Amino acid sequence: MPLKSLIRTIPHYPKQGIQFRDITTLLKDPVGFRMVIDAFAQHYANQPIDKIAGIEARGFIVGAALAYKLGVGFVPIRKSGKLPAETIGHDYALEYGADRVEIHTDAIAQGERVLLVDDLIATGGTAEASVALLQKLGSVVVGCAFVINLPDLGGSQRLADAGLVPYSLCEFEGD
Amino acid sequence: MPLKSLIRTIPHYPKQGIQFRDITTLLKDPVGFRMVIDAFAQHYANQPIDKIAGIEARGFIVGAALAYKLGVGFVPIRKSGKLPAETIGHDYALEYGADRVEIHTDAIAQGERVLLVDDLIATGGTAEASVALLQKLGSVVVGCAFVINLPDLGGSQRLADAGLVPYSLCEFEGD
Repeated sequence: MPLKSLIRTIPHYPKQGIQFRDITTLLKDPVGFRMVIDAFAQHYANQPIDKIAGIEARGFIVGAALAYKLGVGFVPIRKSGKLPAETIGHDYALEYGADRVEIHTDAIAQGERVLLVDDLIATGGTAEASVALLQKLGSVVVGCAFVINLPDLGGSQRLADAGLVPYSLCEFEGD
Repeated sequence: MPLKSLIRTIPHYPKQGIQFRDITTLLKDPVGFRMVIDAFAQHYANQPIDKIAGIEARGFIVGAALAYKLGVGFVPIRKSGKLPAETIGHDYALEYGADRVEIHTDAIAQGERVLLVDDLIATGGTAEASVALLQKLGSVVVGCAFVINLPDLGGSQRLADAGLVPYSLCEFEGD
């Protein structure tokens, strides 16, 4: 698959034993970048969507271009303390420690249909916390879109089990 | 101007005396978001551009959508330590302290024409550091695009004096 071949693997980053899947080589390629956005747009063509929510920071790149393509608004989900107006947050556990995502309380109106977008789904912790934020604001999460799925880490299965309809363009196994 | 009216001002953020210009209210509006990207695309329609470089993190949102629209690749310029492969960096002074931006060394090929994109130009420190990175990689910086210009802070004038052709969609004076 040509899209997958444009993704660079960086061994032992950010730490020993991790194979980092780097999409910057895909994004800088005009054909590859267009292929990513058009593949998502085609997949969601018949799905009513009001807004795209992108997860900081690589989810901004893919999510914003897709929002433009679909003609909908874009909403950022950010790390703690980055959004300037009134926010709600959701804390979640990491392998070591904890993290927090936040969203503006006025980002989504009650009942709006939102597609969550990030570059990669691994264990799914950030995606699940982001879904929780979107649901707290009363939105209907119509799906979760990722460029890359690492199925062995279980996140896509957890999202599917929760009815959150994950969709990805390629997979790397053995991670 | 309708675009400007969609930008929210948050008084005394992130500190006393600063009027923060928040584009999240513009981005979440489907008409507003489209207007931003289409205005840039129209402005640069006759300008040969090979890549868009977006500055972390809000520059990713505007820059990526514009790259998609123009059919070119997207390159992220990030804060220190965020990019996984080989980088070059550029340090620059802030009002208090210093900061650093980085780019992958293979992000741009020699002679490529690059448009720099961010949400806002104030004093211009981050933009000038980003231009320095792009030029170190041998790229031709064809312009610098911002949603918002704060002309009283002098950044756009500094870019113009350096021949870097700033362009913005709206201005807030008295900042």
